[in-house]
Amino acid sequence: MTAEIITVGTEILLGNIINTNAAYLARECAKLGLSDYYQVTVGDNAERLAEVIRTALLRADIIILCGGLGPTEDDLTKETVAEVCGKQLYLDENSKNRIEEYFKKKGREVTPNNIKQAMIPEGAIILENNNGTAPGVIVPFENKHIVLLPGPPIELIPMFEESVIPYITKLMPGVIESQTVKICSVGESAVETQIKDLIDSQTNPTIATYAKTGEVHVRVTAHADTEQEAQKLIKPVVNELKLRFGNNIYTTDEKVSLEQAVVSLLEASELKVSTVESCTGGMVAARLINVAGVSDIFKCGFVTYSNKAKRKLAGVKKSTLEKYTAVSEQTAKEMVSGPELGPKADVIVGITGYAGPTDTPEEPKGLVYIACNVCGSIKVREYHFSGSRQKIRESATTEALVLVRDCVMDYFSEKTFG
Amino acid sequence: MTAEIITVGTEILLGNIINTNAAYLARECAKLGLSDYYQVTVGDNAERLAEVIRTALLRADIIILCGGLGPTEDDLTKETVAEVCGKQLYLDENSKNRIEEYFKKKGREVTPNNIKQAMIPEGAIILENNNGTAPGVIVPFENKHIVLLPGPPIELIPMFEESVIPYITKLMPGVIESQTVKICSVGESAVETQIKDLIDSQTNPTIATYAKTGEVHVRVTAHADTEQEAQKLIKPVVNELKLRFGNNIYTTDEKVSLEQAVVSLLEASELKVSTVESCTGGMVAARLINVAGVSDIFKCGFVTYSNKAKRKLAGVKKSTLEKYTAVSEQTAKEMVSGPELGPKADVIVGITGYAGPTDTPEEPKGLVYIACNVCGSIKVREYHFSGSRQKIRESATTEALVLVRDCVMDYFSEKTFG
Repeated sequence: MTAEIITVGTEILLGNIINTNAAYLARECAKLGLSDYYQVTVGDNAERLAEVIRTALLRADIIILCGGLGPTEDDLTKETVAEVCGKQLYLDENSKNRIEEYFKKKGREVTPNNIKQAMIPEGAIILENNNGTAPGVIVPFENKHIVLLPGPPIELIPMFEESVIPYITKLMPGVIESQTVKICSVGESAVETQIKDLIDSQTNPTIATYAKTGEVHVRVTAHADTEQEAQKLIKPVVNELKLRFGNNIYTTDEKVSLEQAVVSLLEASELKVSTVESCTGGMVAARLINVAGVSDIFKCGFVTYSNKAKRKLAGVKKSTLEKYTAVSEQTAKEMVSGPELGPKADVIVGITGYAGPTDTPEEPKGLVYIACNVCGSIKVREYHFSGSRQKIRESATTEALVLVRDCVMDYFSEKTFG
Repeated sequence: MTAEIITVGTEILLGNIINTNAAYLARECAKLGLSDYYQVTVGDNAERLAEVIRTALLRADIIILCGGLGPTEDDLTKETVAEVCGKQLYLDENSKNRIEEYFKKKGREVTPNNIKQAMIPEGAIILENNNGTAPGVIVPFENKHIVLLPGPPIELIPMFEESVIPYITKLMPGVIESQTVKICSVGESAVETQIKDLIDSQTNPTIATYAKTGEVHVRVTAHADTEQEAQKLIKPVVNELKLRFGNNIYTTDEKVSLEQAVVSLLEASELKVSTVESCTGGMVAARLINVAGVSDIFKCGFVTYSNKAKRKLAGVKKSTLEKYTAVSEQTAKEMVSGPELGPKADVIVGITGYAGPTDTPEEPKGLVYIACNVCGSIKVREYHFSGSRQKIRESATTEALVLVRDCVMDYFSEKTFG
């Protein structure tokens, strides 16, 4: 089956917002096994929107529209779909009550505009909105399915997950299951080379690689009659990937991020971490603290951007800075050799580098040293990143997390086997 | 004149990447005064791509395609455009030489595939690529203009700025100029209410507002025969905005970010700043350090997520934490009352709050206190943010920068007039 994604909104045509909804919906459609050949963005204009819907009805089985369900006169997606399909709108009492309750809860008055959101095309399936006022709808039309979703991602995503995925799944013959294997410390082309034979021989399951900053995700997707059969097809491929990439796989759970994997590893190891950051300026700490409940393993963070701060807070020697400069293996090492300040951590990670924008032979942009101290055992790695100042800092942040993971694992394997 | 943006790439249809190119091109088209009624994404498929180009030729004057200029067989945008327009491709020697030089510089061999990138449709204008191998082209066709750009933003953006903007500007009668006024400390609806009369009476220049996290940008755009005349139309509106929003305007320069404005203010005030962060976990420091050359004004940063770190590093009293909890006006105040550690700063900003995901009456998600100490004068503000853990932390980060700006300005106005 094929899907077409239509995003409605003048703010996208003006480039005021980035169309993350289309990316989200496309990813979900791919996971469901729907082929998406076209994505179209159109403004809040009835004539052009109707034209786009008519074209989509000629070339897709499922048409997903998002945006234009709001209370203002500009919002006309529902009205236009009803017109294209020759359906009337009626006032749905249940939706009206839900909208009134929503406003009551917020202590605000319902305006007549808001009641417009309870107008539903005849024969449509209503998708309740637990995060806003506009209900979604699915309009079945001539063997096609037109899905209308609200524009705000905070409303669209839960509605898609709770109501649209089950609806589409029922339409599809068989099931699609997928599992994501997330790899760090290996570059994209190296991953692809190592699994070229698997990719070349793939039919079901299929294997796809996605490069992220400092990570590669491999998604294994199977199509089968039942979930169980699909999982049976996926499992041997995932096992083969585990064999080939070993410890470089930090998770096989789609929902686990690199920072979550690092936090879980530290928790399991009963180790507490501190950060000492120069060029990343707090980004490593910020990523760790993005994980809820991190206070159990996060001791404290220091941002030591100036040489003075490196000396006073991280205990880097003046002579080291003078002899080797602030961006050197020696400085990185001293940054994690235990700041004398604050509560003591078991693991200390330190980052120093040139993030640009200047780029000189003395201070080459992208040169970064990251050091990690696990219970006294220190490792320092040298990196050469490229891109903008922000990109270099993001790369360094990811690699700092990867280094922490590597060093903690090494520490335990040495303790066990060393 | 109208434009249509066509993004070519299966990776977008699969949702593997977010279509930032479409947003960039849309924004630039709007600035140039082009009306963009449709954006279409299509995969690397000759038949469907040709269909999309033919449709666009019926409804737009300028068609901008991006992606599909690479060296592989999948890349067929140029070939498809040539076919739709009935034009032959020829080998452009100059482009071939540039590609060969590019590879030589990188110390790599040119493959026959890469030479494909030097094939140009007859009669096309070649846009040199200074950041990659694929040249862009503009194909004039039946009073329309088909612009082909490479997909990577690092190649697309400079090519658009250097070659496409001058080309389109020549096609347009008159010039379009715009200026952005960036406002903080005022909500979007408050900004709109305060300038409703200006928006309602707008014709030339036009006025548009854009809400960002914690900021509102107002863009004033004028259309005139010459740049000078356009500026003459813009100036009184910008002056009126300055009158109405005063110090809440942090810049009237499109390219200046909030963190840059704060860094410039601190530099001009000869004040040095330190950060003490709990829920934001280093994000405020990271944003300041995103500004190159910040080492002149950034003393150091502390990430004090745990109570122990708040006590040891920021000198918060145990009794304060026990009596008022970690998320309280009192704790925020003590966080900036001068950490006894590290080099002394003139300005200290401290952030403590509940970012979620848990939300209980005792620990209400979104409650954040931000304190700022300027040379001993301390201000604390209470905030109630909504959204995800990450969104709350981003809002708190922006408001911390805003508070630093407010407090430094207040400090000087009190010193001068107080």
